Amino acid sequence: MTEINPLDALTLEALASRDGIKWSLPGPGVIPAWIADMDFPVAAAVREALTRRAHGDLGYPGWIERPGGPLAVAFAERMESRYGWRPAPDHVRSFTDINQALQVILHLATRPGDEVAVHVPAYPPFLGTLAEMNRPALPIPMEPAGDSWGFDTGALAARLAEGRCRALLLVNPQNPTGRAFTREELTGLAELAERHDLLVISDEIHADLVHAPGGHISFATLLPERTVTLTSATKAFNLGGIRCSVAHVGSPALRATLAAQPAHLYGAAHVFGVEATVAAWRHGDEWLAEAMAVLDRNRRMIAERLPGGVGYRVPDATYLAWLDLSGLGLPEDPAAFLEREARVMLSAGPLFGPGGEGFARLNFATSGPVLSEILDRITRVAKTSS
Amino acid sequence: MTEINPLDALTLEALASRDGIKWSLPGPGVIPAWIADMDFPVAAAVREALTRRAHGDLGYPGWIERPGGPLAVAFAERMESRYGWRPAPDHVRSFTDINQALQVILHLATRPGDEVAVHVPAYPPFLGTLAEMNRPALPIPMEPAGDSWGFDTGALAARLAEGRCRALLLVNPQNPTGRAFTREELTGLAELAERHDLLVISDEIHADLVHAPGGHISFATLLPERTVTLTSATKAFNLGGIRCSVAHVGSPALRATLAAQPAHLYGAAHVFGVEATVAAWRHGDEWLAEAMAVLDRNRRMIAERLPGGVGYRVPDATYLAWLDLSGLGLPEDPAAFLEREARVMLSAGPLFGPGGEGFARLNFATSGPVLSEILDRITRVAKTSS
Repeated sequence: MTEINPLDALTLEALASRDGIKWSLPGPGVIPAWIADMDFPVAAAVREALTRRAHGDLGYPGWIERPGGPLAVAFAERMESRYGWRPAPDHVRSFTDINQALQVILHLATRPGDEVAVHVPAYPPFLGTLAEMNRPALPIPMEPAGDSWGFDTGALAARLAEGRCRALLLVNPQNPTGRAFTREELTGLAELAERHDLLVISDEIHADLVHAPGGHISFATLLPERTVTLTSATKAFNLGGIRCSVAHVGSPALRATLAAQPAHLYGAAHVFGVEATVAAWRHGDEWLAEAMAVLDRNRRMIAERLPGGVGYRVPDATYLAWLDLSGLGLPEDPAAFLEREARVMLSAGPLFGPGGEGFARLNFATSGPVLSEILDRITRVAKTSS
Repeated sequence: MTEINPLDALTLEALASRDGIKWSLPGPGVIPAWIADMDFPVAAAVREALTRRAHGDLGYPGWIERPGGPLAVAFAERMESRYGWRPAPDHVRSFTDINQALQVILHLATRPGDEVAVHVPAYPPFLGTLAEMNRPALPIPMEPAGDSWGFDTGALAARLAEGRCRALLLVNPQNPTGRAFTREELTGLAELAERHDLLVISDEIHADLVHAPGGHISFATLLPERTVTLTSATKAFNLGGIRCSVAHVGSPALRATLAAQPAHLYGAAHVFGVEATVAAWRHGDEWLAEAMAVLDRNRRMIAERLPGGVGYRVPDATYLAWLDLSGLGLPEDPAAFLEREARVMLSAGPLFGPGGEGFARLNFATSGPVLSEILDRITRVAKTSS
């Protein structure tokens, strides 16, 4: 028997007092497994950095505003050490969150009516951004492929040939399927981006959450001058509320466009965001290894414990399980059914766009006992309903 | 002898280890009195709120994203209790800092080439914004008036009649003169804004720093539907690095324009910014009273101790002394001279635009002993030079 991972020590009672939206939104007695926050307590190194800053100088932070400041340098170091990519710190800009960065880039680099290619099902706020900004999604359907998911590059090529698409919004690892795309898949996308003159906006916020023996490939290594890489420590280190993300802008033209904007129009980084991010990236990997061990165990536990009739392909990455509940023959959206009948709150599949009908997304970044309770509850009602 | 105010206990040795830009930029042995950060340690209530959050839930903060969320509600409560103004929480937006808010509003409500009226000398980053965005400043010169400063409404009216001005950027209390404008002055400006159809962007970040018996008048009480009020707890509570400000948008047309933007384009508030701001506004007034007592003593100490030949009009508000050093007959910019010869770093007057030549701005938000040392150093070199 191995030692218990401290991240496995969470209880429902302790979690219920959390004030983030994940735990505060659901009704009493409902276990949340929806929004992509982990239940794990934040890494000690991050808490210490935040606490130190809370007792330190809170004045104007010259130290974060220098060109290629600490956020950019920490990002560049991490990309190099983990992914063999050496980004230029001078090409890094900070934003509050990835969705802000996406909106700024679409605003500056595309026009209303331009299509944006994106794998679907997709992260709902990105679909919201595309709709709100009138950049119609050109869907790249994720399709079952053996015990995983794939997509049809040929079909995408045909759609791109129509000539209305200006950008590829790549989410890699993909949300909600948890696919970490292979070099072959990414190379195919890179060829299409080159052929059709697409800007590639590559959201790699889940990159640190790829399970061994898989690996993450930074898209910027394939097409450096076409790629804007978006990332943040907030996902892998569970810091959604700090609102600190980075954009590495590989495109010289887009860098020039950004530089021509009023310098403060899109805001500025704050000391806690930078402190937390730098601490996570520099000193958080021991914690991350513990989290990944729990997540790896959890992704397998789901496969073992899900009731018959529920489809599930073990994700390569992320802490998200994309469940096909259509086989249960429910008369309503499965997430609504599960929230009411099983008292667990998943994310409703239809929010993720095409391919989401009959599905729900389960966030399994929680302790073994809590996940076990979630699976018990789902199993109980699935058996009743079938 | 009264008890020593704890904010007066700062020493040069302790301050030298600060890592904000105020203390880290000047060379060794140079006392900084330039950028508008206070030297005072942050209020205990604010530190406690930040520390609590550092140990609490750092996930997606649903609690700050509800319409009229805690930041807006705390702002509205403070405006009502201190200034008798009841703003609508629903009309509040958050930004990272005041300069971001200013840039967003100018971007959405004015066009390149439109003039913006502003009192000069002025806060240098605002002059930078107007230049960068090609919104030429229509200067309203601050002029000596008895032992204070005033401005000529008639001259402004004549310039406005030329018809090129679309907005008034009001900084009240004014920086760098420290004037808290009277109702008569503000009413005159309101009449002109109405007559010439100006949007009023009212930066009231120094409002909490008006000394008794004076008071602050929220411009929105005079012209509610023309006024955008910008403020932040970062100035009065010394939190420049948290980057959290609010804009109350009184103009229905501008609210509609803002609502039509992509929802995340200009970023989103973060948990530490909101926690610190709410704690400062709700629980920081005891600390603020201590700070104001030190600042009141300091603004008078400067008047008593400045050497002959240096002009100074005691400010109504702020912790900024706008010093006329032209009488010293220096062969160079006074701030450069003082940094080299007196080893004190003030803000150079010419950065503040018209009226800044021969002046320098002294930040006196420090302990009595440190301010005394600053004044000794200035006096010593002033005597040598004269």
